[in-house]
Amino acid sequence: MSRIGIVGLGLIGGSLGLDLRAQGHEILGIARRRTTCDRALERGIADWAGTELNRLSNVEILFLCTPIAAILPTLEQVRPHLHPDTLVTDVASVKAPIVTAATPLWPYFLGGHPMAGTEQQGVEAAQTHLFQNAPYVLTPTATTPPELTIILTSLIQQLQAQRYCCAPEAHDRAVASISHLPVIISASLIASCQQSLDAETQALAQALASSGFRDTSRVGGGNPELGVMMARYNRAALQAALDSYRESLAALSDQIEQEDWDALTAALQQTQAARPPFVE
Amino acid sequence: MSRIGIVGLGLIGGSLGLDLRAQGHEILGIARRRTTCDRALERGIADWAGTELNRLSNVEILFLCTPIAAILPTLEQVRPHLHPDTLVTDVASVKAPIVTAATPLWPYFLGGHPMAGTEQQGVEAAQTHLFQNAPYVLTPTATTPPELTIILTSLIQQLQAQRYCCAPEAHDRAVASISHLPVIISASLIASCQQSLDAETQALAQALASSGFRDTSRVGGGNPELGVMMARYNRAALQAALDSYRESLAALSDQIEQEDWDALTAALQQTQAARPPFVE
Repeated sequence: MSRIGIVGLGLIGGSLGLDLRAQGHEILGIARRRTTCDRALERGIADWAGTELNRLSNVEILFLCTPIAAILPTLEQVRPHLHPDTLVTDVASVKAPIVTAATPLWPYFLGGHPMAGTEQQGVEAAQTHLFQNAPYVLTPTATTPPELTIILTSLIQQLQAQRYCCAPEAHDRAVASISHLPVIISASLIASCQQSLDAETQALAQALASSGFRDTSRVGGGNPELGVMMARYNRAALQAALDSYRESLAALSDQIEQEDWDALTAALQQTQAARPPFVE
Repeated sequence: MSRIGIVGLGLIGGSLGLDLRAQGHEILGIARRRTTCDRALERGIADWAGTELNRLSNVEILFLCTPIAAILPTLEQVRPHLHPDTLVTDVASVKAPIVTAATPLWPYFLGGHPMAGTEQQGVEAAQTHLFQNAPYVLTPTATTPPELTIILTSLIQQLQAQRYCCAPEAHDRAVASISHLPVIISASLIASCQQSLDAETQALAQALASSGFRDTSRVGGGNPELGVMMARYNRAALQAALDSYRESLAALSDQIEQEDWDALTAALQQTQAARPPFVE
Protein backbone atom coordinates (compact mmCIF):
# COMPACT_ATOMS: atom_id res chain seq x y z
CA MET A 1 0.00 0.00 0.00
CA SER A 2 1.24 3.47 -0.88
CA ARG A 3 0.76 6.97 0.37
CA ILE A 4 -0.77 8.79 -2.58
CA GLY A 5 -1.30 12.53 -3.03
CA ILE A 6 -3.94 13.94 -5.35
CA VAL A 7 -3.97 17.64 -6.27
CA GLY A 8 -7.37 18.61 -7.64
CA LEU A 9 -10.38 16.77 -6.25
CA GLY A 10 -12.81 17.06 -9.16
CA LEU A 11 -14.29 14.34 -11.33
CA ILE A 12 -10.99 12.63 -12.18
CA GLY A 13 -9.03 13.33 -8.99
CA GLY A 14 -11.99 12.53 -6.77
CA SER A 15 -12.77 9.30 -8.64
CA LEU A 16 -9.11 8.22 -8.39
CA GLY A 17 -9.29 8.88 -4.66
CA LEU A 18 -12.43 6.81 -4.18
CA ASP A 19 -11.08 3.74 -6.02
CA LEU A 20 -7.48 3.88 -4.77
CA ARG A 21 -8.58 4.41 -1.18
CA ALA A 22 -10.91 1.42 -1.53
CA GLN A 23 -7.81 -0.58 -2.53
CA GLY A 24 -6.20 0.31 0.81
CA HIS A 25 -3.94 3.17 -0.21
CA GLU A 26 -3.65 6.22 2.02
CA ILE A 27 -4.98 9.24 0.11
CA LEU A 28 -3.93 12.84 0.82
CA GLY A 29 -6.07 15.26 -1.13
CA ILE A 30 -5.28 18.87 -1.99
CA ALA A 31 -7.79 21.41 -3.27
CA ARG A 32 -7.76 25.17 -3.44
CA ARG A 33 -11.06 25.56 -1.61
CA ARG A 34 -11.63 24.36 1.95
CA THR A 35 -15.25 23.45 1.08
CA THR A 36 -14.03 21.04 -1.61
CA CYS A 37 -11.70 19.40 0.92
CA ASP A 38 -14.52 19.00 3.44
CA ARG A 39 -16.78 17.46 0.81
CA ALA A 40 -13.99 15.10 -0.33
CA LEU A 41 -13.59 13.88 3.26
CA GLU A 42 -17.34 13.42 3.67
CA ARG A 43 -17.50 11.43 0.43
CA GLY A 44 -14.59 9.16 1.43
CA ILE A 45 -12.36 10.40 -1.37
CA ALA A 46 -9.37 10.99 0.90
CA ASP A 47 -8.03 10.11 4.35
CA TRP A 48 -6.83 13.69 4.74
CA ALA A 49 -7.75 16.69 2.61
CA GLY A 50 -6.57 20.27 2.86
CA THR A 51 -5.05 23.24 1.10
CA GLU A 52 -1.50 23.03 2.50
CA LEU A 53 1.02 21.80 -0.09
CA ASN A 54 3.64 20.95 2.58
CA ARG A 55 1.50 17.98 3.61
CA LEU A 56 2.69 16.30 0.38
CA SER A 57 6.27 15.91 1.74
CA ASN A 58 5.94 12.18 2.42
CA VAL A 59 3.73 10.97 -0.44
CA GLU A 60 5.20 8.26 -2.67
CA ILE A 61 3.02 8.95 -5.70
CA LEU A 62 1.41 12.25 -6.69
CA PHE A 63 -1.42 12.68 -9.20
CA LEU A 64 -1.83 16.15 -10.69
CA CYS A 65 -5.56 16.32 -11.52
CA THR A 66 -6.10 20.04 -12.06
CA PRO A 67 -7.43 21.50 -15.32
CA ILE A 68 -4.78 21.22 -18.01
CA ALA A 69 -3.71 24.89 -17.82
CA ALA A 70 -2.85 24.49 -14.13
CA ILE A 71 -0.79 21.26 -14.38
CA LEU A 72 2.62 22.89 -14.92
CA PRO A 73 2.10 25.82 -12.51
CA THR A 74 0.95 23.29 -9.90
CA LEU A 75 4.05 21.16 -10.44
CA GLU A 76 6.20 24.26 -9.91
CA GLN A 77 4.35 25.02 -6.68
CA VAL A 78 4.46 21.54 -5.16
CA ARG A 79 8.03 20.76 -6.25
CA PRO A 80 9.78 22.35 -3.20
CA HIS A 81 7.62 20.24 -0.86
CA LEU A 82 8.17 16.80 -2.43
CA HIS A 83 10.62 14.07 -1.50
CA PRO A 84 12.94 13.58 -4.54
CA ASP A 85 11.80 9.93 -4.95
CA THR A 86 8.14 10.89 -5.41
CA LEU A 87 6.61 9.61 -8.62
CA VAL A 88 4.62 12.47 -10.19
CA THR A 89 2.01 11.87 -12.88
CA ASP A 90 -0.79 13.88 -14.44
CA VAL A 91 -4.15 13.18 -16.11
CA ALA A 92 -4.19 15.81 -18.88
CA SER A 93 -5.78 14.92 -22.23
CA VAL A 94 -2.75 16.23 -24.18
CA LYS A 95 0.66 14.79 -23.42
CA ALA A 96 3.63 16.10 -25.44
CA PRO A 97 3.53 19.74 -24.21
CA ILE A 98 3.04 18.61 -20.60
CA VAL A 99 5.68 15.87 -20.65
CA THR A 100 8.25 18.07 -22.42
CA ALA A 101 7.88 20.85 -19.85
CA ALA A 102 7.39 18.66 -16.75
CA THR A 103 10.34 16.29 -17.19
CA PRO A 104 13.09 18.95 -16.63
CA LEU A 105 11.16 20.14 -13.57
CA TRP A 106 10.78 16.64 -12.13
CA PRO A 107 12.79 13.70 -13.51
CA TYR A 108 10.45 11.21 -11.80
CA PHE A 109 7.55 12.41 -13.96
CA LEU A 110 5.47 10.07 -16.13
CA GLY A 111 2.57 11.49 -18.15
CA GLY A 112 -0.78 9.72 -18.04
CA HIS A 113 -4.24 10.08 -19.54
CA PRO A 114 -7.18 8.17 -18.11
CA MET A 115 -9.78 8.32 -20.89
CA ALA A 116 -12.92 8.31 -18.81
CA GLY A 117 -15.33 11.05 -17.96
CA THR A 118 -18.86 12.26 -17.74
CA GLU A 119 -20.53 15.54 -18.61
CA GLN A 120 -20.40 16.49 -14.92
CA GLN A 121 -17.48 18.15 -13.19
CA GLY A 122 -16.36 18.83 -9.64
CA VAL A 123 -16.08 16.86 -6.42
CA GLU A 124 -19.77 15.88 -6.49
CA ALA A 125 -19.26 14.19 -9.88
CA ALA A 126 -16.55 11.84 -8.54
CA GLN A 127 -17.66 8.23 -8.68
CA THR A 128 -16.37 4.72 -8.04
CA HIS A 129 -15.36 2.49 -10.97
CA LEU A 130 -15.12 5.47 -13.35
CA PHE A 131 -11.99 3.97 -14.96
CA GLN A 132 -13.18 0.38 -15.17
CA ASN A 133 -12.54 -0.96 -18.71
CA ALA A 134 -11.59 2.54 -19.90
CA PRO A 135 -8.24 3.14 -21.63
CA TYR A 136 -5.50 4.64 -19.44
CA VAL A 137 -2.55 5.80 -21.53
CA LEU A 138 0.97 6.17 -20.11
CA THR A 139 3.50 8.16 -22.14
CA PRO A 140 7.07 7.37 -21.07
CA THR A 141 9.97 8.94 -23.00
CA ALA A 142 13.51 7.68 -23.61
CA THR A 143 14.61 9.28 -20.33
CA THR A 144 11.73 8.11 -18.10
CA PRO A 145 12.97 5.71 -15.35
CA PRO A 146 11.35 2.33 -16.23
CA GLU A 147 10.17 1.70 -12.65
CA LEU A 148 7.68 4.59 -12.95
CA THR A 149 5.80 2.70 -15.66
CA ILE A 150 5.80 -0.46 -13.53
CA ILE A 151 4.44 1.34 -10.46
CA LEU A 152 1.68 3.19 -12.33
CA THR A 153 0.74 0.07 -14.29
CA SER A 154 0.05 -1.66 -11.00
CA LEU A 155 -2.27 1.16 -9.89
CA ILE A 156 -4.01 1.16 -13.27
CA GLN A 157 -4.66 -2.56 -12.87
CA GLN A 158 -6.20 -1.86 -9.47
CA LEU A 159 -8.52 0.65 -11.19
CA GLN A 160 -9.41 -2.13 -13.66
CA ALA A 161 -8.56 0.24 -16.50
CA GLN A 162 -6.89 -0.85 -19.75
CA ARG A 163 -3.31 0.37 -19.87
CA TYR A 164 -1.69 1.56 -23.10
CA CYS A 165 1.89 2.79 -23.46
CA CYS A 166 3.15 5.06 -26.23
CA ALA A 167 5.26 8.14 -26.91
CA PRO A 168 3.59 11.43 -25.92
CA GLU A 169 3.54 12.54 -29.57
CA ALA A 170 1.82 9.32 -30.72
CA HIS A 171 -0.84 9.81 -28.03
CA ASP A 172 -1.43 13.37 -29.19
CA ARG A 173 -1.70 12.36 -32.86
CA ALA A 174 -4.14 9.56 -32.01
CA VAL A 175 -6.44 11.70 -29.84
CA ALA A 176 -6.25 14.57 -32.33
CA SER A 177 -7.68 12.23 -34.97
CA ILE A 178 -10.32 10.40 -32.97
CA SER A 179 -11.31 13.00 -30.39
CA HIS A 180 -10.28 16.58 -31.25
CA LEU A 181 -10.79 16.49 -35.05
CA PRO A 182 -14.40 15.23 -34.69
CA VAL A 183 -15.22 18.30 -32.58
CA ILE A 184 -14.10 20.69 -35.33
CA ILE A 185 -15.70 18.85 -38.26
CA SER A 186 -18.90 18.41 -36.28
CA ALA A 187 -18.99 22.10 -35.32
CA SER A 188 -18.41 23.03 -38.97
CA LEU A 189 -21.54 21.04 -39.91
CA ILE A 190 -23.67 23.08 -37.52
CA ALA A 191 -22.06 26.36 -38.61
CA SER A 192 -22.59 25.53 -42.26
CA CYS A 193 -26.28 24.62 -41.80
CA GLN A 194 -26.79 27.81 -39.87
CA GLN A 195 -24.99 30.10 -42.30
CA SER A 196 -25.83 28.72 -45.74
CA LEU A 197 -29.60 28.12 -45.55
CA ASP A 198 -32.20 30.87 -45.86
CA ALA A 199 -34.52 31.19 -42.85
CA GLU A 200 -37.35 29.13 -44.35
CA THR A 201 -35.12 26.26 -45.52
CA GLN A 202 -33.29 26.33 -42.19
CA ALA A 203 -36.60 25.92 -40.33
CA LEU A 204 -37.44 23.00 -42.64
CA ALA A 205 -34.00 21.47 -42.08
CA GLN A 206 -34.51 21.75 -38.32
CA ALA A 207 -37.86 19.97 -38.61
CA LEU A 208 -36.48 17.20 -40.84
CA ALA A 209 -33.14 16.58 -39.11
CA SER A 210 -32.99 13.11 -37.61
CA SER A 211 -30.43 10.66 -36.21
CA GLY A 212 -27.82 11.25 -38.94
CA PHE A 213 -27.60 14.94 -38.15
CA ARG A 214 -27.99 14.35 -34.42
CA ASP A 215 -25.02 11.98 -34.23
CA THR A 216 -22.75 13.86 -36.63
CA SER A 217 -23.36 17.20 -34.89
CA ARG A 218 -23.20 15.99 -31.27
CA VAL A 219 -19.61 16.76 -30.30
CA GLY A 220 -19.64 20.02 -32.29
CA GLY A 221 -22.51 21.24 -30.11
CA GLY A 222 -20.70 20.45 -26.86
CA ASN A 223 -18.84 22.52 -24.27
CA PRO A 224 -17.01 25.36 -26.14
CA GLU A 225 -14.33 25.76 -23.44
CA LEU A 226 -13.42 22.07 -23.72
CA GLY A 227 -13.16 22.33 -27.50
CA VAL A 228 -10.92 25.41 -27.33
CA MET A 229 -8.78 23.78 -24.65
CA MET A 230 -8.20 20.73 -26.85
CA ALA A 231 -7.32 22.90 -29.85
CA ARG A 232 -5.05 25.10 -27.80
CA TYR A 233 -2.99 22.40 -26.13
CA ASN A 234 -2.93 19.94 -29.02
CA ARG A 235 -2.70 22.52 -31.78
CA ALA A 236 0.12 21.00 -33.86
CA ALA A 237 -1.41 17.51 -33.95
CA LEU A 238 -4.90 18.88 -34.56
CA GLN A 239 -3.69 21.02 -37.46
CA ALA A 240 -2.03 18.00 -39.05
CA ALA A 241 -5.25 16.00 -38.60
CA LEU A 242 -7.27 18.86 -40.11
CA ASP A 243 -4.95 19.07 -43.12
CA SER A 244 -5.35 15.35 -43.75
CA TYR A 245 -9.11 15.56 -43.23
CA ARG A 246 -9.51 18.42 -45.68
CA GLU A 247 -7.65 16.35 -48.30
CA SER A 248 -9.97 13.38 -47.76
CA LEU A 249 -13.00 15.66 -47.99
CA ALA A 250 -11.68 17.28 -51.17
CA ALA A 251 -11.20 13.85 -52.75
CA LEU A 252 -14.81 12.84 -52.08
CA SER A 253 -16.07 16.27 -53.19
CA ASP A 254 -14.16 15.92 -56.47
CA GLN A 255 -15.68 12.49 -57.10
CA ILE A 256 -19.15 13.96 -56.61
CA GLU A 257 -18.43 16.99 -58.80
CA GLN A 258 -17.05 14.74 -61.55
CA GLU A 259 -19.94 12.29 -61.11
CA ASP A 260 -17.41 9.49 -60.72
CA TRP A 261 -19.85 7.14 -59.00
CA ASP A 262 -17.55 4.12 -59.28
CA ALA A 263 -14.84 5.95 -57.36
CA LEU A 264 -17.34 7.22 -54.76
CA THR A 265 -18.73 3.71 -54.33
CA ALA A 266 -15.22 2.34 -53.80
CA ALA A 267 -14.42 5.11 -51.31
CA LEU A 268 -17.60 4.54 -49.28
CA GLN A 269 -17.05 0.78 -49.33
CA GLN A 270 -13.59 1.45 -47.91
CA THR A 271 -14.91 3.69 -45.11
CA GLN A 272 -17.62 1.15 -44.29
CA ALA A 273 -14.95 -1.54 -43.96
CA ALA A 274 -12.51 0.70 -42.05
CA ARG A 275 -14.89 1.82 -39.29
CA PRO A 276 -15.50 -1.36 -37.23
CA PRO A 277 -11.97 -1.59 -35.72
CA PHE A 278 -12.47 1.91 -34.30
CA VAL A 279 -15.85 1.26 -32.69
CA GLU A 280 -15.90 -2.42 -31.70
CA MET B 1 -62.39 5.28 -48.41
CA SER B 2 -60.26 5.15 -51.53
CA ARG B 3 -58.90 2.53 -53.85
CA ILE B 4 -55.12 2.91 -53.53
CA GLY B 5 -52.41 1.34 -55.69
CA ILE B 6 -48.88 0.79 -54.41
CA VAL B 7 -46.06 -0.13 -56.79
CA GLY B 8 -43.14 -1.59 -54.86
CA LEU B 9 -43.98 -3.58 -51.72
CA GLY B 10 -40.77 -3.14 -49.74
CA LEU B 11 -40.22 -1.37 -46.42
CA ILE B 12 -42.00 1.89 -47.39
CA GLY B 13 -44.61 0.54 -49.81
CA GLY B 14 -45.43 -2.40 -47.55
CA SER B 15 -45.70 -0.22 -44.45
CA LEU B 16 -47.99 2.23 -46.29
CA GLY B 17 -50.16 -0.73 -47.30
CA LEU B 18 -50.43 -2.05 -43.74
CA ASP B 19 -51.49 1.29 -42.23
CA LEU B 20 -53.75 2.51 -45.05
CA ARG B 21 -55.52 -0.86 -45.28
CA ALA B 22 -56.08 -0.74 -41.52
CA GLN B 23 -57.80 2.62 -42.11
CA GLY B 24 -60.28 0.91 -44.43
CA HIS B 25 -58.79 1.75 -47.83
CA GLU B 26 -58.70 -0.90 -50.53
CA ILE B 27 -55.06 -1.62 -51.39
CA LEU B 28 -53.87 -3.00 -54.74
CA GLY B 29 -50.20 -3.94 -54.58
CA ILE B 30 -47.83 -4.38 -57.52
CA ALA B 31 -44.42 -6.04 -57.28
CA ARG B 32 -42.11 -7.49 -59.90
CA ARG B 33 -41.83 -10.87 -58.18
CA ARG B 34 -44.77 -13.15 -57.58
CA THR B 35 -43.23 -14.31 -54.27
CA THR B 36 -43.26 -10.72 -52.97
CA CYS B 37 -46.94 -10.42 -53.90
CA ASP B 38 -47.79 -13.64 -52.08
CA ARG B 39 -45.93 -12.51 -48.98
CA ALA B 40 -47.65 -9.10 -49.11
CA LEU B 41 -51.04 -10.83 -49.15
CA GLU B 42 -50.06 -13.14 -46.29
CA ARG B 43 -48.90 -10.15 -44.23
CA GLY B 44 -52.11 -8.20 -44.84
CA ILE B 45 -50.33 -5.44 -46.77
CA ALA B 46 -52.81 -5.50 -49.67
CA ASP B 47 -56.27 -6.73 -50.60
CA TRP B 48 -54.95 -7.78 -53.99
CA ALA B 49 -51.32 -8.11 -55.07
CA GLY B 50 -49.87 -9.11 -58.42
CA THR B 51 -47.51 -8.23 -61.22
CA GLU B 52 -50.06 -6.99 -63.80
CA LEU B 53 -50.00 -3.20 -64.25
CA ASN B 54 -53.41 -3.13 -65.97
CA ARG B 55 -55.02 -3.86 -62.59
CA LEU B 56 -54.23 -0.22 -61.68
CA SER B 57 -56.86 1.12 -64.14
CA ASN B 58 -59.38 2.01 -61.44
CA VAL B 59 -57.18 3.18 -58.53
CA GLU B 60 -57.81 6.73 -57.31
CA ILE B 61 -54.38 7.24 -55.73
CA LEU B 62 -51.11 5.59 -56.74
CA PHE B 63 -47.94 5.47 -54.60
CA LEU B 64 -44.68 4.80 -56.46
CA CYS B 65 -42.49 3.10 -53.85
CA THR B 66 -39.72 1.59 -55.97
CA PRO B 67 -36.04 2.44 -55.48
CA ILE B 68 -35.38 6.00 -56.66
CA ALA B 69 -33.81 4.95 -59.98
CA ALA B 70 -36.98 3.08 -60.95
CA ILE B 71 -39.54 5.81 -60.11
CA LEU B 72 -39.60 7.53 -63.52
CA PRO B 73 -39.37 4.32 -65.63
CA THR B 74 -42.20 2.89 -63.51
CA LEU B 75 -44.33 6.00 -64.11
CA GLU B 76 -43.77 5.62 -67.86
CA GLN B 77 -44.85 1.97 -67.65
CA VAL B 78 -48.00 2.47 -65.56
CA ARG B 79 -49.14 5.64 -67.35
CA PRO B 80 -51.05 3.91 -70.19
CA HIS B 81 -53.02 1.89 -67.64
CA LEU B 82 -54.18 4.74 -65.35
CA HIS B 83 -57.40 6.70 -65.33
CA PRO B 84 -56.50 10.36 -66.07
CA ASP B 85 -57.87 11.49 -62.67
CA THR B 86 -55.53 9.24 -60.69
CA LEU B 87 -53.37 11.09 -58.15
CA VAL B 88 -49.81 9.80 -58.51
CA THR B 89 -47.21 10.37 -55.79
CA ASP B 90 -43.79 8.94 -54.97
CA VAL B 91 -41.68 8.41 -51.85
CA ALA B 92 -38.17 9.19 -53.16
CA SER B 93 -35.70 10.93 -50.85
CA VAL B 94 -34.80 13.51 -53.53
CA LYS B 95 -37.55 15.60 -55.04
CA ALA B 96 -36.59 18.22 -57.67
CA PRO B 97 -35.29 15.80 -60.35
CA ILE B 98 -38.28 13.48 -59.86
CA VAL B 99 -40.91 16.22 -59.77
CA THR B 100 -39.43 18.03 -62.77
CA ALA B 101 -39.45 14.88 -64.90
CA ALA B 102 -42.70 13.38 -63.58
CA THR B 103 -44.99 16.42 -63.92
CA PRO B 104 -44.94 16.55 -67.77
CA LEU B 105 -45.61 12.79 -67.82
CA TRP B 106 -48.51 13.04 -65.36
CA PRO B 107 -50.09 16.42 -64.48
CA TYR B 108 -51.78 14.88 -61.42
CA PHE B 109 -48.40 14.13 -59.84
CA LEU B 110 -47.39 15.40 -56.38
CA GLY B 111 -43.96 14.48 -55.00
CA GLY B 112 -43.71 13.16 -51.45
CA HIS B 113 -41.03 12.02 -49.02
CA PRO B 114 -41.98 10.09 -45.90
CA MET B 115 -38.86 10.40 -43.71
CA ALA B 116 -39.07 7.12 -41.87
CA GLY B 117 -37.09 3.96 -42.25
CA THR B 118 -35.09 1.23 -40.66
CA GLU B 119 -31.89 -0.54 -41.64
CA GLN B 120 -33.96 -3.41 -43.04
CA GLN B 121 -35.40 -3.56 -46.54
CA GLY B 122 -37.97 -5.63 -48.42
CA VAL B 123 -41.48 -6.86 -47.79
CA GLU B 124 -40.51 -8.60 -44.53
CA ALA B 125 -39.32 -5.25 -43.11
CA ALA B 126 -42.73 -3.59 -43.61
CA GLN B 127 -44.31 -2.63 -40.30
CA THR B 128 -47.32 -0.85 -38.87
CA HIS B 129 -46.99 2.70 -37.50
CA LEU B 130 -43.67 3.24 -39.32
CA PHE B 131 -44.68 6.83 -40.18
CA GLN B 132 -46.14 7.77 -36.82
CA ASN B 133 -44.69 11.15 -35.71
CA ALA B 134 -42.22 11.08 -38.61
CA PRO B 135 -42.00 13.99 -41.06
CA TYR B 136 -43.78 13.46 -44.39
CA VAL B 137 -42.85 16.17 -46.90
CA LEU B 138 -45.05 17.12 -49.85
CA THR B 139 -43.48 19.19 -52.64
CA PRO B 140 -46.15 20.88 -54.77
CA THR B 141 -45.06 23.29 -57.52
CA ALA B 142 -46.80 26.32 -59.01
CA THR B 143 -48.63 24.04 -61.47
CA THR B 144 -49.70 21.29 -59.04
CA PRO B 145 -53.53 21.15 -58.70
CA PRO B 146 -54.23 22.19 -55.07
CA GLU B 147 -56.63 19.28 -54.46
CA LEU B 148 -53.72 16.82 -54.67
CA THR B 149 -52.16 18.37 -51.57
CA ILE B 150 -55.51 18.24 -49.76
CA ILE B 151 -56.07 14.55 -50.60
CA LEU B 152 -52.55 13.43 -49.63
CA THR B 153 -52.61 15.54 -46.47
CA SER B 154 -55.66 13.57 -45.36
CA LEU B 155 -53.84 10.25 -45.90
CA ILE B 156 -50.75 11.55 -44.09
CA GLN B 157 -52.94 12.47 -41.11
CA GLN B 158 -54.30 8.92 -41.12
CA LEU B 159 -50.68 7.67 -40.96
CA GLN B 160 -50.21 10.01 -37.97
CA ALA B 161 -47.19 11.49 -39.71
CA GLN B 162 -46.20 15.16 -39.54
CA ARG B 163 -46.87 16.85 -42.86
CA TYR B 164 -44.57 19.54 -44.26
CA CYS B 165 -45.05 21.38 -47.55
CA CYS B 166 -42.30 23.07 -49.52
CA ALA B 167 -40.88 23.51 -53.00
CA PRO B 168 -38.97 20.46 -54.32
CA GLU B 169 -35.73 22.49 -54.41
CA ALA B 170 -36.12 23.62 -50.77
CA HIS B 171 -36.63 19.99 -49.73
CA ASP B 172 -33.49 18.95 -51.59
CA ARG B 173 -31.40 21.76 -50.07
CA ALA B 174 -32.64 20.90 -46.58
CA VAL B 175 -31.99 17.15 -46.84
CA ALA B 176 -28.63 17.79 -48.54
CA SER B 177 -27.58 19.76 -45.46
CA ILE B 178 -28.96 17.57 -42.70
CA SER B 179 -28.81 14.12 -44.26
CA HIS B 180 -26.55 13.82 -47.32
CA LEU B 181 -23.76 16.20 -46.24
CA PRO B 182 -23.27 14.36 -42.90
CA VAL B 183 -22.59 11.13 -44.84
CA ILE B 184 -19.74 12.72 -46.81
CA ILE B 185 -18.12 14.58 -43.90
CA SER B 186 -18.43 11.50 -41.70
CA ALA B 187 -16.90 9.24 -44.38
CA SER B 188 -14.04 11.74 -44.78
CA LEU B 189 -13.28 11.38 -41.06
CA ILE B 190 -12.88 7.61 -41.40
CA ALA B 191 -10.85 7.96 -44.61
CA SER B 192 -8.56 10.52 -43.02
CA CYS B 193 -7.91 8.42 -39.90
CA GLN B 194 -7.17 5.43 -42.10
CA GLN B 195 -4.88 7.25 -44.50
CA SER B 196 -2.94 9.73 -42.36
CA LEU B 197 -1.87 7.64 -39.35
CA ASP B 198 1.03 5.19 -39.37
CA ALA B 199 0.08 1.59 -38.51
CA GLU B 200 1.09 1.84 -34.84
CA THR B 201 -0.72 5.15 -34.21
CA GLN B 202 -3.75 3.88 -36.10
CA ALA B 203 -3.93 0.82 -33.83
CA LEU B 204 -3.69 3.15 -30.82
CA ALA B 205 -6.39 5.41 -32.27
CA GLN B 206 -8.64 2.38 -32.76
CA ALA B 207 -8.11 1.36 -29.14
CA LEU B 208 -8.75 4.86 -27.78
CA ALA B 209 -11.69 5.86 -30.00
CA SER B 210 -14.84 6.35 -27.96
CA SER B 211 -18.31 7.88 -28.29
CA GLY B 212 -17.14 11.07 -30.05
CA PHE B 213 -15.59 9.12 -32.90
CA ARG B 214 -18.39 6.55 -32.88
CA ASP B 215 -21.13 9.14 -33.34
CA THR B 216 -19.29 11.37 -35.80
CA SER B 217 -18.28 8.41 -38.01
CA ARG B 218 -21.58 6.49 -37.91
CA VAL B 219 -23.29 7.59 -41.10
CA GLY B 220 -19.99 7.60 -43.02
CA GLY B 221 -19.60 3.91 -42.24
CA GLY B 222 -23.07 3.04 -43.50
CA ASN B 223 -24.45 1.49 -46.70
CA PRO B 224 -22.23 2.68 -49.62
CA GLU B 225 -24.97 2.21 -52.24
CA LEU B 226 -27.31 4.47 -50.26
CA GLY B 227 -24.61 7.16 -49.97
CA VAL B 228 -23.86 7.08 -53.70
CA MET B 229 -27.56 7.14 -54.54
CA MET B 230 -28.04 10.28 -52.42
CA ALA B 231 -25.04 11.99 -54.03
CA ARG B 232 -26.13 10.98 -57.50
CA TYR B 233 -29.74 12.15 -57.32
CA ASN B 234 -29.15 15.21 -55.16
CA ARG B 235 -25.80 16.19 -56.63
CA ALA B 236 -26.40 19.91 -57.18
CA ALA B 237 -27.76 20.54 -53.68
CA LEU B 238 -25.09 18.33 -52.09
CA GLN B 239 -22.31 20.17 -53.93
CA ALA B 240 -23.67 23.51 -52.71
CA ALA B 241 -23.83 22.13 -49.14
CA LEU B 242 -20.27 20.80 -49.45
CA ASP B 243 -18.99 24.17 -50.70
CA SER B 244 -20.57 25.92 -47.72
CA TYR B 245 -19.28 23.25 -45.33
CA ARG B 246 -15.72 23.55 -46.61
CA GLU B 247 -15.88 27.31 -46.03
CA SER B 248 -17.05 26.81 -42.43
CA LEU B 249 -14.30 24.24 -41.86
CA ALA B 250 -11.68 26.55 -43.35
CA ALA B 251 -12.79 29.35 -41.03
CA LEU B 252 -12.37 27.19 -37.92
CA SER B 253 -9.06 25.80 -39.23
CA ASP B 254 -7.76 29.35 -39.75
CA GLN B 255 -8.72 30.32 -36.19
CA ILE B 256 -6.77 27.34 -34.88
CA GLU B 257 -3.75 28.03 -37.10
CA GLN B 258 -3.73 31.68 -36.03
CA GLU B 259 -4.29 30.70 -32.39
CA ASP B 260 -7.25 33.08 -32.28
CA TRP B 261 -8.82 31.43 -29.24
CA ASP B 262 -11.35 34.22 -28.70
CA ALA B 263 -12.71 33.71 -32.21
CA LEU B 264 -12.76 29.92 -31.81
CA THR B 265 -14.56 30.26 -28.47
CA ALA B 266 -17.17 32.53 -30.06
CA ALA B 267 -17.61 30.10 -32.98
CA LEU B 268 -18.06 27.06 -30.71
CA GLN B 269 -20.46 28.99 -28.48
CA GLN B 270 -22.48 29.73 -31.59
CA THR B 271 -22.57 26.09 -32.73
CA GLN B 272 -23.52 24.99 -29.22
CA ALA B 273 -26.43 27.44 -29.27
CA ALA B 274 -27.44 26.61 -32.86
CA ARG B 275 -27.72 22.81 -32.46
CA PRO B 276 -30.77 22.36 -30.17
CA PRO B 277 -33.41 23.48 -32.74
CA PHE B 278 -32.15 20.74 -35.07
CA VAL B 279 -32.28 17.91 -32.55
CA GLU B 280 -35.08 18.71 -30.13
